[in-house]
Parts: sequence; structure tokens; C-alpha cells
Amino acid sequence: MSLARVHNFSISLDGFGTGEGLSREAPFGHAGERLHEWMFATRFWHEMTRQPGGTRGLDDAFARQHTPGIGAEIMGAGKFGYPGWHTDPEWKGWWGANPPFHTPTFVLTHHPRPSIEMEGGTTFHFLDVSPAGALEAAREAAGGQDVRIGGGPTVVRDFLAARLIDHLHVTVTPILLGRGVRLWDGLEGLEEDYEVEATSSPGGVMHLTLTRKGL
Amino acid sequence: MSLARVHNFSISLDGFGTGEGLSREAPFGHAGERLHEWMFATRFWHEMTRQPGGTRGLDDAFARQHTPGIGAEIMGAGKFGYPGWHTDPEWKGWWGANPPFHTPTFVLTHHPRPSIEMEGGTTFHFLDVSPAGALEAAREAAGGQDVRIGGGPTVVRDFLAARLIDHLHVTVTPILLGRGVRLWDGLEGLEEDYEVEATSSPGGVMHLTLTRKGL
Repeated sequence: MSLARVHNFSISLDGFGTGEGLSREAPFGHAGERLHEWMFATRFWHEMTRQPGGTRGLDDAFARQHTPGIGAEIMGAGKFGYPGWHTDPEWKGWWGANPPFHTPTFVLTHHPRPSIEMEGGTTFHFLDVSPAGALEAAREAAGGQDVRIGGGPTVVRDFLAARLIDHLHVTVTPILLGRGVRLWDGLEGLEEDYEVEATSSPGGVMHLTLTRKGL
Repeated sequence: MSLARVHNFSISLDGFGTGEGLSREAPFGHAGERLHEWMFATRFWHEMTRQPGGTRGLDDAFARQHTPGIGAEIMGAGKFGYPGWHTDPEWKGWWGANPPFHTPTFVLTHHPRPSIEMEGGTTFHFLDVSPAGALEAAREAAGGQDVRIGGGPTVVRDFLAARLIDHLHVTVTPILLGRGVRLWDGLEGLEEDYEVEATSSPGGVMHLTLTRKGL
């Protein structure tokens, strides 16, 4: 069975998955990198970015579930690029020549373009389809493995609303952003379909997992 | 030093401190009693409502901090009564003849009325003043003890925005209400002035404490 999974999705205490004022210089707007500092401290991140060290505790245990068993990723246009990237034919994402996905990666956009093959196994495909349509395409490309729903908040929310997600890992960072894009909007009653577990970390964040009931 | 404290303030995972559709029959609207079930299970609550039993763990340890050292409470009009209670001269709150406050209790309302002395030490006073004005009055009545800010969400938010709260205990219940009144709205950067600690409970909720820095 191929699951749809979300990992390391970070929100503020007031529920924002990204800030306001997104731009090429500020991918998360006024939030900066504050939502992800918990992850940068982990050994998982240090390994991925080829730095020594990194923590080995609870945050790391959650963080490194990002990779195993994933055969494709789906992301929104707002994760792939800055507002307006679709007018730049040279834009290939934020991640340089060798992006950290290493699988087929489907970008949901109203401005599709030809696929881009990157180094390290990542190929970006651009689709103007529904969440269900994207998941079908990604599952086929994943060859029986799971599909990661990579965000941003609007995409995760849309997939949750359609009950297309099987497992969701969210961290809550104790800052208040005040403005931006909320993850949980319009999801009344979600807990009826998901088991929710919360774990506070010595690192200062909370880890939430939502797993589809009966899975 | 007389502190302003909030205890056992319960919100949903999506941040709502009360639901939509508040009425005399539904004090929390469509939220019902779901935000407070964690508290009803505690020994603190069982003692207060003269029932046997109740849990004795983490939830109880947090819950029973509600009472010690408190000399007065401040609450909003929306905690004291249903929408429109000010047109009912007989309304004396939800709690019967002996309310669980046992101190002077200040109700913030644009429709003040004469004070009401209840059994057990609770006297309701009605004030049409600013948060700072209410805190001044409550501190004087508290005789050197602390003042509890009792809610609802709008009142707690207003006191936080004015940085009038010294200690805030919030529980997050893993349900999504989708609509209602949010606690955290408009509080960008609050963490700059408060130490935030999060603890997940075996009972399934998260306890957050925000304590003013340098206190």
C-alpha cells in the first residue's frame, strides 16, 4: 500500500506554516527560518547538508522519517518558487543543482512547463490538476512506494480536506507569527478521521502526528 | 507582588477558545464541553464538584493551580453570561448560588449594573473600563494576592496584547473546531516577552505555560 505522508511540516503556535511577504529573498516571508530551527539542529539535517554534529534525540528521530520509503513528492507552486517564478523560464527551485528530493517531484501549478531533470534523481514535473489527480500521477511514478506531500500550508490543507493524507507530522514552534498562511483553516472535525498524538520535545517544539484511523 | 494569572484556559488544535453559536443553552457554542474534558477528568474538578475519584497526574497538577494565591478574578461579559444577558435583570451567571470563584469577581461589560453578592465569598462587580483599569480595581480587591484573568478568549487576548498577564496556562485539545473565537490572533512576537514551555500529557492534551521574562 502506497501512503501519502507529510513530514517535518512546521507551524507557529498561532498556526501559520509560512509568514507574510514571501519573495525570492524571503521564501518564508517575515517568518524567516524560525519555524525550521528545530530541524536545522538535528543530525538528520547535518547529514543532509554535509555538516558534522547535530542532535540525536526526539527531534532527530522525527525528522529523519522524511526520507525512507518515499518514491515521489508533491509540492505546491509556492514551495517550488517565489511569487512570480512562473514568468522566469530559468527558475529551477531553491535547492541548486542537486535538490534534496531524489525522486520524481510533482509541482502543482496553473502554469505548467516541461519537466526538468536535476542531478541526484530529482525530476520536476509540472501539473495543473486536482490533489487527487496529482496523487494518482505521483503514486504511479513512486513505483509502489509512498508519496510525500511536501507543502506549503495550502497544499497540505487541501490534501487534508480531501482526506488524501494518511500520515501527517507537524511540529509546533513556540513563536507567534501573527500573519501568514494557516495550516488548520477550514478543517473542522478532522480528528474524527485521524488519531492525534502530541509529544513535547526537550528541544522546545511539539511534535504532532495525525494518522488516518484504521490504517 | 500581585501577579495576573490565567489557568486552565483551553483551546482547540486550530486555536479556538470557544465555538460559534453561543447561547444560554450552549455556553461554548458548537464546541460544547469538548475543550474542557481533560479538566473534568481531574481530581481537582471532582473535588470542586463534590464527586469521588478523578485523575492525579499531570493534568491534575496543572489544573489545581487555578485556586491557590488568587484574591480576585476578572472575566469578560461573554464568560459571565449568554449573548444578551445584560437585558435580563435576574441573570447571576452560570454557576448557581455558590459560584466557584470565592473572591471578588470583576465582570468587564459595557452594561454595568449593581454588584451582586453570592454565597461562598463570590461578589460580582460590573465594570466598563480598560484591561488596565480592571486590573487595578481587582488588585486592590485582592488584598495583595494574585488576580486570575478568567477569560474568555477575547479578554485573555486583550490582556496579553497589553502585556498585563504574568503567567498563562493554556491547554491544547486535539480537536479542530474550524470556527469560533481564536486566542492567539494579533499577538505577533509575544514570545519575545514570555518564556514558553510545552508539555504533552498522557491524557492527550498539551499544556503550554507562558511566563513573563524576568519574573
